[in-house]
Amino acid sequence: MQWDAWGDPACRRELSDGVRALLTSALGVTAPPVLRRSIGEVPVEPSALGPTHLRALSAVVGDSHVGVSDIDRLLHAGGKSTLDLLRRRSVDRQQAPDAVLTPGGADEVQDILRYCSKHRIAVVPFGGGTSVVGGLDPVRDGFEAVVSLDLRRFDQLSDLDEESGIATLGAGITGPRAEELLRARGFSIGHFPQSFRFATIGGFAATRSSGQASAGYGRFEDMVHGLTVVTPSGVLVTGRAPASAAGPDLGELFVGSEGTLGVITEVRVRVHHVPEAIEREGWNFPDFATGAAALRQLVQESSVPTVLRLSDEAETGVNLATTGKIGESAVAGGCLGITTYEGTAELVSQRMAQARAVLAAHGGTSLGPEPGNDWEKGRFDAPYLRDALLDAGALCETLETATTWGNLANVRTAVTQALVDALTTQGTSPLVMCHISHTYTTGASLYFTVVCAQTTDPSGQWLAAKRAAGDAITGSGATITHHHAVGVDHRPWMADEIGGLGANILQAVKNAVDPAGILNPGKLIP
Amino acid sequence: MQWDAWGDPACRRELSDGVRALLTSALGVTAPPVLRRSIGEVPVEPSALGPTHLRALSAVVGDSHVGVSDIDRLLHAGGKSTLDLLRRRSVDRQQAPDAVLTPGGADEVQDILRYCSKHRIAVVPFGGGTSVVGGLDPVRDGFEAVVSLDLRRFDQLSDLDEESGIATLGAGITGPRAEELLRARGFSIGHFPQSFRFATIGGFAATRSSGQASAGYGRFEDMVHGLTVVTPSGVLVTGRAPASAAGPDLGELFVGSEGTLGVITEVRVRVHHVPEAIEREGWNFPDFATGAAALRQLVQESSVPTVLRLSDEAETGVNLATTGKIGESAVAGGCLGITTYEGTAELVSQRMAQARAVLAAHGGTSLGPEPGNDWEKGRFDAPYLRDALLDAGALCETLETATTWGNLANVRTAVTQALVDALTTQGTSPLVMCHISHTYTTGASLYFTVVCAQTTDPSGQWLAAKRAAGDAITGSGATITHHHAVGVDHRPWMADEIGGLGANILQAVKNAVDPAGILNPGKLIP
Repeated sequence: MQWDAWGDPACRRELSDGVRALLTSALGVTAPPVLRRSIGEVPVEPSALGPTHLRALSAVVGDSHVGVSDIDRLLHAGGKSTLDLLRRRSVDRQQAPDAVLTPGGADEVQDILRYCSKHRIAVVPFGGGTSVVGGLDPVRDGFEAVVSLDLRRFDQLSDLDEESGIATLGAGITGPRAEELLRARGFSIGHFPQSFRFATIGGFAATRSSGQASAGYGRFEDMVHGLTVVTPSGVLVTGRAPASAAGPDLGELFVGSEGTLGVITEVRVRVHHVPEAIEREGWNFPDFATGAAALRQLVQESSVPTVLRLSDEAETGVNLATTGKIGESAVAGGCLGITTYEGTAELVSQRMAQARAVLAAHGGTSLGPEPGNDWEKGRFDAPYLRDALLDAGALCETLETATTWGNLANVRTAVTQALVDALTTQGTSPLVMCHISHTYTTGASLYFTVVCAQTTDPSGQWLAAKRAAGDAITGSGATITHHHAVGVDHRPWMADEIGGLGANILQAVKNAVDPAGILNPGKLIP
Repeated sequence: MQWDAWGDPACRRELSDGVRALLTSALGVTAPPVLRRSIGEVPVEPSALGPTHLRALSAVVGDSHVGVSDIDRLLHAGGKSTLDLLRRRSVDRQQAPDAVLTPGGADEVQDILRYCSKHRIAVVPFGGGTSVVGGLDPVRDGFEAVVSLDLRRFDQLSDLDEESGIATLGAGITGPRAEELLRARGFSIGHFPQSFRFATIGGFAATRSSGQASAGYGRFEDMVHGLTVVTPSGVLVTGRAPASAAGPDLGELFVGSEGTLGVITEVRVRVHHVPEAIEREGWNFPDFATGAAALRQLVQESSVPTVLRLSDEAETGVNLATTGKIGESAVAGGCLGITTYEGTAELVSQRMAQARAVLAAHGGTSLGPEPGNDWEKGRFDAPYLRDALLDAGALCETLETATTWGNLANVRTAVTQALVDALTTQGTSPLVMCHISHTYTTGASLYFTVVCAQTTDPSGQWLAAKRAAGDAITGSGATITHHHAVGVDHRPWMADEIGGLGANILQAVKNAVDPAGILNPGKLIP
């Protein structure tokens, strides 16, 4: 990925004249484009890792697996939140880890963690680098140095138990590579978050990731059969059986641990046969409340599609759900729903019939396959659009939460109002859009996209909006994050989220596995 | 429940002459019936709780909520494993908690835990008293005294969010009472373990219970939206949203904590509308391997029934799956499968058609609704049968595990062989039967029932068999328990199950929430 933008520069997205006109007329975007610099031109804070440590760590992983160049370090300097991108563009001298280590096995990871524990060197585990919550920030937090531990060499499909439907995958394998390895054997994981193209299997587990097909295949935590986690205090192997009553599920402590409790080196993940058939269908609902009620009925009472989404009126109005056509042609009002169905041809047809009956009975009108196909084509591209908007002087960011069905309208209103108020106060009245992309029998996620003009301090501008939104989420009883994880950015709300005793428990676990506190300091644990 | 047997004495089960003849001829049962004593006749170890403590605890819960009579104490003396029942019949002076406290609210629980922490009094949380792993044993473990904390007064359905499908239930509500309260509003939990009639909502959570309808409604951990847990260090409220990426799922630490980490006082549980239609169908498979492969195909590739079970040849042969007809009429060889389907009439019909096609394609022959209806009628009665067998001089006990589909045949063979060897060596060649009652895409449970003649030391006899079975389970890579929990009986295998680091993590959590270690000592944590 580019150092100061999402993904592959070849996929760079140009805004259409229509969108540019809309930004100016509706949002008052007038700011000049933000400076972009090529990675070779950027000054980087010098490495704080002395030659003794460098030699010792090189002895563990081999000289060729220790990166100390500015470029290596910059490419591991953090994630891809809007704040990250703004910082890379606006700050002259960049912070970066002092070295990048790419160990080749769990033993090397163990040796690195032991050495760093002894010598007070912080370690930031690094997968695909797609965090949008500051989860990869090279926080020093009183340590002598901080190194990035890149898991890219954990790249093997080391086992596929076809009978049990369990694949053993190295933590550093990216989403596309995992699907490629598995599809060659006729299998698929079915986990497709927006970060899919770059994020890794280990990262999916470390952040409690949830993919676009969660309605059908579950969240990544549901797919995890077992983990191998290397900690400074030893190795934990979880997932002895498909289900167990042998005490608390310790694996659940490491799913979502964000590199603070250990380094996930291997994931045993549930896989299924590559679906024989896929059908997609778009739906129109007269308004968000009607659409949300229809989705609720569907997940509570019927067969559930593999993908199930609902955009609100604002998002539907600008066609954000199908990024290929954004701003070009608006559907005729109302709210757009997307459904897809995967499986054997017969099951797809039967499930689709069941779901269609429920959606139609609850106020939906079929729009045929096209909106679903359009959505599918552009479904990993929104981050490129954000970069184009940032380049054009607009501020664009997303945030998300989840709550019960009974609290959904309340949370949506509270968060939208908080964002509108916080940005309007700064003279930049925003467009706030929302969709449901993950559904459960008891509730759903809410995903907000915010676009407005940048002020002269866009980072400060967004921080104020984010603070207001986070307070509104927490204040209305929802979770501070449904799938983006905690990192640095959501940490201020964690004490409220899990309570004082919850924070103590998390810290107690941390102390047990990482007594020196070297693992990803400054993240997650309040 | 009776002090020395399962359940309600009015439901006492008589063995038919056919079964009695079978016990004698096939298993050589000749031992005379074991002594049964009425609860009033049994000598009980005197209470070790001095008057100062008694006054202080009475001040917390009120005089009428402190039980110190021998009968109160005997009724809280432990659970209902075969070892428990043998001990009650064979040992003269019985061990029992020193007092039984029945607090009326979370505040009182908190006060009890604080007092007991300060004064080194162990506390055993008590729900329905149905543990079959020694989870309720009044272990003193160096403490001055041990009290039973009975949650029966936590008996309210305090909230029902019909839109979100979430019920807030007091931890002390039994299975039938919870269903009664919810059905009055049109809802059901759908959790029906064999202990259903006596076990409690809090107990289901504390033991990671799994019910007979787990294929349709999931394990109890899947149904738990949130918990309120009172610990000596404060109260934890989990379950802020249907799903969250805000760090590790701390609720998963308390589901399965067996009273060692806190007292669960309230459970917010997922509920669904009372199903409109229920269909049942029995199936015959030529052998267990064919039947297991058919179940695997079903859960991996199709719609899944609500209940899905498969008895092996031995269990099918004595008709144990339908306890009402045990030993009376054997089906014509092969293995009996049971399926049930619940939901709207239309969905039941569609799902049943989908599942039938898969089962038939994989070697199954429909037996029509009768076997399913027979199973349904007797599905909570097996423990009464065990009592009748014990009274007749037979030894009868069950144990269970789970593993991946790929390892299922291996585990079944290893455990069966271990049981046969360990009991045959003692001169009591057993009948070992097995069934699958819980299925997952990646694997299934195995539930073993063992019947043989009692030796003169039936407790020692069973301990040897259990030790061999546990070693075989652990040695073959399966979990030491799929749904019976750990308690005292499975604790010897926990270090192997979760590893040394896992044990340290569990102990670290224990130290954080229960620094004095008063909560259910001697259980779960290795």
